[in-house]
Amino acid sequence: MSAALNHQWRLVSRPVGNLKQTDFEWASTPIPEPGEGEVLVRVLYLSLDPTYRMWAATDTYLPAVPLGEVMRGITIGVVEKSNHPSLPAGTHVQGLLGWQEYAVCKPQHLNILPPLPGVPLDAYFGLFGHIGMTAYFGLVDIGQPQSGETLVVSAAAGAVGSLVGQIGRLKGCHVVGIAGSDEKCRWLVEELGFNAAINYKSEDVHASLKKHCPNGIDIDFENVGGTILDAILTQINLHARIVLCGLISGYNATTPPRGPAAFGNILIKRARVEGFIVTDYQSRAMEAMTALGQWYAEGKIRYRIDQVEGLAQAPEALTRLFTGENIGKLLVKL
Amino acid sequence: MSAALNHQWRLVSRPVGNLKQTDFEWASTPIPEPGEGEVLVRVLYLSLDPTYRMWAATDTYLPAVPLGEVMRGITIGVVEKSNHPSLPAGTHVQGLLGWQEYAVCKPQHLNILPPLPGVPLDAYFGLFGHIGMTAYFGLVDIGQPQSGETLVVSAAAGAVGSLVGQIGRLKGCHVVGIAGSDEKCRWLVEELGFNAAINYKSEDVHASLKKHCPNGIDIDFENVGGTILDAILTQINLHARIVLCGLISGYNATTPPRGPAAFGNILIKRARVEGFIVTDYQSRAMEAMTALGQWYAEGKIRYRIDQVEGLAQAPEALTRLFTGENIGKLLVKL
Repeated sequence: MSAALNHQWRLVSRPVGNLKQTDFEWASTPIPEPGEGEVLVRVLYLSLDPTYRMWAATDTYLPAVPLGEVMRGITIGVVEKSNHPSLPAGTHVQGLLGWQEYAVCKPQHLNILPPLPGVPLDAYFGLFGHIGMTAYFGLVDIGQPQSGETLVVSAAAGAVGSLVGQIGRLKGCHVVGIAGSDEKCRWLVEELGFNAAINYKSEDVHASLKKHCPNGIDIDFENVGGTILDAILTQINLHARIVLCGLISGYNATTPPRGPAAFGNILIKRARVEGFIVTDYQSRAMEAMTALGQWYAEGKIRYRIDQVEGLAQAPEALTRLFTGENIGKLLVKL
Repeated sequence: MSAALNHQWRLVSRPVGNLKQTDFEWASTPIPEPGEGEVLVRVLYLSLDPTYRMWAATDTYLPAVPLGEVMRGITIGVVEKSNHPSLPAGTHVQGLLGWQEYAVCKPQHLNILPPLPGVPLDAYFGLFGHIGMTAYFGLVDIGQPQSGETLVVSAAAGAVGSLVGQIGRLKGCHVVGIAGSDEKCRWLVEELGFNAAINYKSEDVHASLKKHCPNGIDIDFENVGGTILDAILTQINLHARIVLCGLISGYNATTPPRGPAAFGNILIKRARVEGFIVTDYQSRAMEAMTALGQWYAEGKIRYRIDQVEGLAQAPEALTRLFTGENIGKLLVKL
C-alpha cells in the first residue's frame, strides 16, 4: 500500500555546522484529501538551494522551519485532484510545497507554469523561476552592468552564478567566474563563454583576479563571502557594486563568521553593497522571464541540471551544495 | 623678520598607530610671490578632519601626501596679492592650501566664499563647505530618510554627525546619536534636538540601541565602524541604508581592522551599504548650501566650532579627533 502514502522529510533538529542527514527524519502519512476550494498537488521536482541551510537553522527573511514539521522546499508539481475551477487536474504549478510527495494547497499559494513549447519542466528551476529571477534582477537591477565593465561571479558554476555570467556577457561585460574545480572552470569558459575562470581550490584567488581583471572589478556578484570576498574587495574600482546574493561560505559556520577584512575599501572606493532576495521582485517576474526566454530561444543562454533521483536522496544531496560538488541547478526528481 | 616667513608643517613620516607630533616637522620658508595669473592667499583657518589620517598614511581616494612636503589641508584664506582679475585682494576663498600660513594658487584651485550677511567665516567649515555637504548629501542622497524612520548617527557630536542628526530631525526621523561623553550626549539632546543619545564609553551600545530604537534602525550614518557598527548592524530593519561616511575607529589601527561581524545581516535584511566622498558632489554644492542656509536663517540648525589658536598647535589638535575629546567642528585659527 506504499503508493497510497505521502513520504516526506521532516526537520527534527537545528543543524550545527555541516548539515547532517540526522537533522531530517523520513516519515510517511496518508495522502491528504483537498478540501473545499483546494487542490492536491503531486510533487515532480524539489529544488535544492543553499538558502535551505538558513531556513533549517534560524529565523532570517523567513521564519525558521518549526522542528517536527515537513522541511520547507521549492517545488514543481502537477495538480492531481482539484476542487477549484482555476486549477484543473493536470495543471503544472510551482510553490513552497516542501520536501514531500504530495501537498494540499489553496490556489493563491501556487504559481501556474505556462506550458512553453520546447521548454522542459526543469527549465522552471534551471532558467526561469527563482533561479533565473535571482540572476537577472540581482545583476541587472542591483549590479547595473555597463558594457566594457568587469564582472566577477563567485560560485560561478552554480545555478545562479552560471546564469549571471552569461547575462553579464550579453550585457557586454568582461566576465570572470570563480569555481571549485578545473572541470567547472572549463565549462564556464568553453561552454558558457565566460572570459576567464578561477579555480579557488588550486589557485591564489587574489593573484588570479589581478591577472584576469587587469582593469579592476566593477561588479561582484557575491554568492560566497569569506576569503573570496576579501580578495575581490581589495580590487574593486571606484563606484563598484557588490551584489550580495549569498554568503554560502559562512552558512555552516559554528562561530559567527568575521566580516570582510577589506570592508574599509567600500568607503574608499565609494562602492555600494546591496543585499537582495528574489521574493522582493515577484511583481516583476514576467520581465525576467521574457528576457531569459528570448535569450534561450535565440540560443544565447544555457542552463544545466544536476538531477538526483528520488526524494529519499534529498538530505544527502543538499550537502553537496556546500562542498562544491555540484554543477548547475541541483534538484531532486521525485 | 618672522613676519616675512611662511611657517608650515611638513609630513616627514608615515604615521603608524596613533598620529604623533613627530610625524610632522615645523619649517619656515620665504613667503612666495604669485606669478602671472596667480594669487597669494593668507590662510585664516585650517580645518582638521579625520580623513587627514588617511592622507598622511597611504594612497586612498587621494594620493598620500609625499614625505617632506607640506601636509595637505582644507583651508579658508584671504587673497593678499593678486595677479588675476577674478580674484582681487581681499576676496575670501576656500581651497586645499595645506598646513601653512601662505600659499600661491591658480584661481581654478580656489572656491570664492560669497559674503553672507550675519554669517561668520567659520560657518564655511562648520555648516557649509565640505562638512555641510558631507552631512547633507550623505543623509539625503544616500540615506534617503523618510518621515517616521529611525536614524542612528555615530560620532554624533562631531562636525558632520551633529549636522546629520539635525537634518534627520528636520526630515521627520527619530534620531539617536552615539557619542563619547555625557556632556556630548546632553548637547545632542538638549541643544540640537536629538531624540536620544548614547554614551558609548559608559553604556552597553547594543542594549541602549534596543531601548532607544524600539522600531529598529532604518538608516545608519556611519562615521566610526568597529564594535559600534557591529551593534547597529544586528538591529537594522528591512531595506536599511548604511551611509558609509567614515570608519574612524580603524584609522589608527596597526593591524588590518576586521570587517563587521554582522555583515551577513546586510543580505538577510536586503540592506544597502554605500560609501561616498563629498568631492563626488561638488557639482551640486549649491543645493546643499541653499538648504542649510535656509535652515540656519530660520534658526532650525546649529553648528559648533571647536577652535584651536595658532598653526603650531595643529598636529596635537588633530589627535583629539581620534580620542573623542572634541565637540563640533575642529579647526585651527591662524
